[in-house]
Parts: sequence; C-alpha cells; structure tokens
Amino acid sequence: MTDATLDVVGIGNAIVDVIATADDAFLEQHGMTKGSMMLIDEQRAEQIYQAMGSTVITSGGSAGNTIAGIASLGGKTGFIGRVRQDALGDAYRHDITATGATFSTPAASDGPATARCLILVTPDAQRTMNTFLGACVNLGPNDIDADLVRSAAVTYLEGYLYDAPSAMEAFHAAAGIAHDAGRKVALSLSDAFCVNRHRDAFKRLVERHVDILFANEAEIEALFETASLHDAIAQLQGMTEIAAVTRSEHGSVVVTPEQTIEVPAHPVDHVVDTTGAGDLYAAGFLFGYTRGAPMHECARLGSLAASEIIGHFGARPQTPLAALVRSLSA
Amino acid sequence: MTDATLDVVGIGNAIVDVIATADDAFLEQHGMTKGSMMLIDEQRAEQIYQAMGSTVITSGGSAGNTIAGIASLGGKTGFIGRVRQDALGDAYRHDITATGATFSTPAASDGPATARCLILVTPDAQRTMNTFLGACVNLGPNDIDADLVRSAAVTYLEGYLYDAPSAMEAFHAAAGIAHDAGRKVALSLSDAFCVNRHRDAFKRLVERHVDILFANEAEIEALFETASLHDAIAQLQGMTEIAAVTRSEHGSVVVTPEQTIEVPAHPVDHVVDTTGAGDLYAAGFLFGYTRGAPMHECARLGSLAASEIIGHFGARPQTPLAALVRSLSA
Repeated sequence: MTDATLDVVGIGNAIVDVIATADDAFLEQHGMTKGSMMLIDEQRAEQIYQAMGSTVITSGGSAGNTIAGIASLGGKTGFIGRVRQDALGDAYRHDITATGATFSTPAASDGPATARCLILVTPDAQRTMNTFLGACVNLGPNDIDADLVRSAAVTYLEGYLYDAPSAMEAFHAAAGIAHDAGRKVALSLSDAFCVNRHRDAFKRLVERHVDILFANEAEIEALFETASLHDAIAQLQGMTEIAAVTRSEHGSVVVTPEQTIEVPAHPVDHVVDTTGAGDLYAAGFLFGYTRGAPMHECARLGSLAASEIIGHFGARPQTPLAALVRSLSA
Repeated sequence: MTDATLDVVGIGNAIVDVIATADDAFLEQHGMTKGSMMLIDEQRAEQIYQAMGSTVITSGGSAGNTIAGIASLGGKTGFIGRVRQDALGDAYRHDITATGATFSTPAASDGPATARCLILVTPDAQRTMNTFLGACVNLGPNDIDADLVRSAAVTYLEGYLYDAPSAMEAFHAAAGIAHDAGRKVALSLSDAFCVNRHRDAFKRLVERHVDILFANEAEIEALFETASLHDAIAQLQGMTEIAAVTRSEHGSVVVTPEQTIEVPAHPVDHVVDTTGAGDLYAAGFLFGYTRGAPMHECARLGSLAASEIIGHFGARPQTPLAALVRSLSA
C-alpha cells in the first residue's frame, strides 16, 4: 500500500443550487415538506423556478460541498460526478476545480441537463430542497476513476447516490476499489427520507463496507426505526470504526467501538441558511481525521466548518476555512 | 398630472453578478484597482472567470439592485434594461420580475451576450468589479417605455449608463419624459472613475435635470475635483432639491438648499461584501421619499437597507426588507 496522495475523493451528485427565500405558505402551496429533499422532474423544476423569488446560484451537491470544504481547509481532494455540457455544467466544473479539486469526470454530451436543486430558505433558516437529478442519473461504474480512488486516504460517498440505480452501482464499485487499496470508506446518510427509501440497503452497507459514518439525529433514528437518539447510538456502536452524529445547535456525538464523545457546536451569530451544514461538518471532520487528529478535534473542526456556511446562502465556504481555523487558534 | 401608480422606475445596466473571494495579490496580478469598476471585453471576462475562485451568481446592476430593494421594502417598481436571450438573461429577468417589478424591455435576439460583472471580494469586504457590458450597450432611446416612466413618481438613473453612448441617449430621453410628466428624476453617480470619465457631462446633468442625487464621498469629490468633502458639499448645496452623500460606516449626509442633515449608519455585525451598499441606500431613501417621509427618516431607511446586503455576498436583499423595518419599529 503506497501513501495516499489525496486526502479525500468525493463521489456524489454534481448539482447546482438555486436558492431563494420563501415563507411557510409557499412550501404548503407547492406541496413541499419543510426540511426535506424531494426529487422532481425537469418540468416541475421549471414551475417551481418560475414561482420562487430572486435567486442566488452556487454549486452544491452534498459530496461536492464536503470536497470544497476540505479544500478550503487546505486538504488535497478529488471529485467524481456527472454534469452535462451546458451553462450550469460549466459553472459546476469551474467551481469545483477552482477549489483545487481534481475533477476529471467527462461531461455528458447528450441526455438530461445538469442537475439543479431549487432550495427554499424559510425565515427559520431551514432549507427545503427540490432536486432535479438530470445528468447525475447517468453516473455509473465506468465513471469511477480507479486511480483517483486509490490515491485518496478516504473515499467519501453521499447516500443520495442510492436514488439513481446506476449511481448506486458506481458507489459500490468505488467502495470496493477503496478497500482493496487499503483505504477508508466514509458515507453520509444524506437525508432521513433518503434513509427511509433505502433503509435495508443502507444498513447492510454500513455494517459491511463503511468505516466512517456521518448522519444527523433524524437520519440515524430513521436507520434504526427508533425515536430515541440514545437507542440509535446504542445500536450503531461497533458497526463502524467511527460514526459522527450531528445534532444542530446541540453539537455532535462521535461514536467509536470504545467510547462516545460529545462535542459542542461552534457558536454562530445569526443562522441564515442551514443548507450544507452536515456536508461541511463532514469536511472539517475528515480534514482532521486524515491528519491524525483526535476525535474531539475532528468534531470541533467539523462544527467550525459548518458554522461558516450557515451564516450565508449556499453551502460552499465564502471565507477561506484554513484562515478561520488559524484565527481561532491564534 | 395624474397620480403615480409606481413609486420608482429604474433604468440601468441589466447585469448578472459573478462573485468570488480573492486576496490582494489576485487583484494585483490581474491589474485590478481595488474598489473600482473596470470595463472589460468578453475575452477578458472569460480569462478572469477561469482564474477566480468558486462563485456565487446573482442578479445585480446598480439600478436593478435599487429597484429590488424598493420592492423588498414594499414599494411598486418598474425596470428598464437590456439583456440578451440566453441563460444569464433569463436568470436576470426571473430575478427582477420575482421582486414584483414590471420589466417589459424585450431581450435582444442577437448581438452581445447578457452583461456580467465579475466581482472579487477581498477579506476587507471591499469589492472590485470587472464589467462586461454585453447586451447593455444596445440600450437606446427606443427602449424607454414612456408610459412606464410617466407612471412612476421617480425615475432613477444610474451614472454607469454614460459608459455606453446609446444608453446615455436613453438616459436623457427618460429624464425628459419624466420631467414633462411632472415627475422627479434621481441619479446615482455610480463610481468615482465613472465620474472622472464623464465629469463635465455629469455636472451639466446634475445642475439642469436631476432632482435627487446619490453619491458617495469619493464620487462627489471627483465631481468637484476636490479632496475635501466639506468643499464638495458646499458646491453641491442648491444644485439639486436633495443630495444624499453616503460615507460608509460614518453614515450619510442629506443636503437640501436649506439644510445639511447628518444621519449615522445602521450598525452591522460583520461586513462581508459591500457590493450594492450605495444601491440599497438609494432604495431605502427613495422608498421613504415616495411616502413623504422626512429627510432623516429617508436616510435612516437607506442605511437600514444597505446594512442588510453588506452582511452577505450579492447586492439583492436576502431578508425581506419590509419585515426588517417592522422588526426594528416594534
């Protein structure tokens, strides 16, 4: 086993976020469930776009956000995901490449358009997501650059990939390549509704193939079909080398076979938009992990990275996170 | 003279902002002058875009930002500006229309692409702008919807229009129509470099055709070629019915023929990006003015509106300003 040249390679849906504020009545009128991610087709994407307010457009996608966060902290990264050759696809490529990530997945020259996620942010800073997966549904095992995966200490996969059958196959192929190369596999459960859609598959996956699991309270409770976080954590303990459960303003809990560590959230002045909080927590955590930091320090870096992006629209850092870490250590 | 059905119609460059963080070295390396607006061609726009970091894309343009701000405060607005039929043009139309503004200028079916402004935000929250005017240069007198102009209590013009000869003609046509209908004409000087490019024309314009002038310290000093704000204000007094001079964290000074009123800035926790601060000051001010508010109240509303948008990337409000005003009055 050679030394990893990258810290983390992320595999996920390459999605451009289109963000606007909305009130609860808007969500109700359009049949949206607050806080969830709903899959939509292109026609509905157009309808929602026409109805929503003035937007901010920025690259997103769960694993892509995590990769951008790790890069912003100073980590070396790669990304695998599918866009189409169109204006949004070009913007996505620009943005992920501009973070310093290696992104060599070719853009599709035909088929569905680049994916977009229409995000409504309510005054309580919650985000409600409507995702048109577009070109992402054609991500398949052939898109997995085996050398890129082998070169990274951690391969990070988003649970959302399970929503597209060929992407799920790509996911498994990547996990296999990573483990064969002696690397670690990390998974984010993404969304409680996504967990409900794929519960049994996720459980098998976590038990057999995941070294590092990221989930929030709702997701972990959905996985074990319990309303008790305590119960869920008890069932989780020992299933993975590390599980990090995020609890919004209550911080996070790191679960290893030996111990459970609670780490407080990083204080935030004014929460504007929680989109990507989990993605950035994973970024901070994995940045620490790949540098051999102790668990509580990994969690602290996760909370710090999350705190930056919930202060503004969009899930990509607007302050270089490495500078933020330095300013707090000084 | 019939009652105005709109509060303000804005006429300006229809520009989409493409925003990224950068350090001072980036500005130097690319020959940019911090804090200024530089006109660039499409090729240079592409070069800068490729070199800049991960972006946030949102509608901008000085007068467009002001119109969005007035709408967000609850005012009735219209906008005149030129986009092309392309992805950015569609986004611009969506955004201005979503604010509630009437926007009936048809999109160009050929010629240059929709305008974009590549904005680099440095850690000191200053913005440095590189504008490819694209389709805006073809805004001409024929684009001025005379009925729309007549229907508004105030016609608001951005000084940047002077950078394109036919837009300047459109500007004059609009001012003439507004005055003939007994309406008021407001002008923003836009940028000190823009004032230097068109000083004599601006001076004549202010003396003869402008009722309400917006400018910051640097712009007003450039107009009168003086390094003293006191001098500039003395020369300004009496030239217009109202002049509002913004002074960043020092608030603003309202100058009328009879008096000079100093109003403090609205306190801001953390300044992220000053793009659009002047545009939103004008929005708050004109919202108050068209409701007959006293001068100090107009200035206070201006400062409040500006304080919202400098807390995030982009120059369009992310919190409904009407709600912000209510929350502070409560």
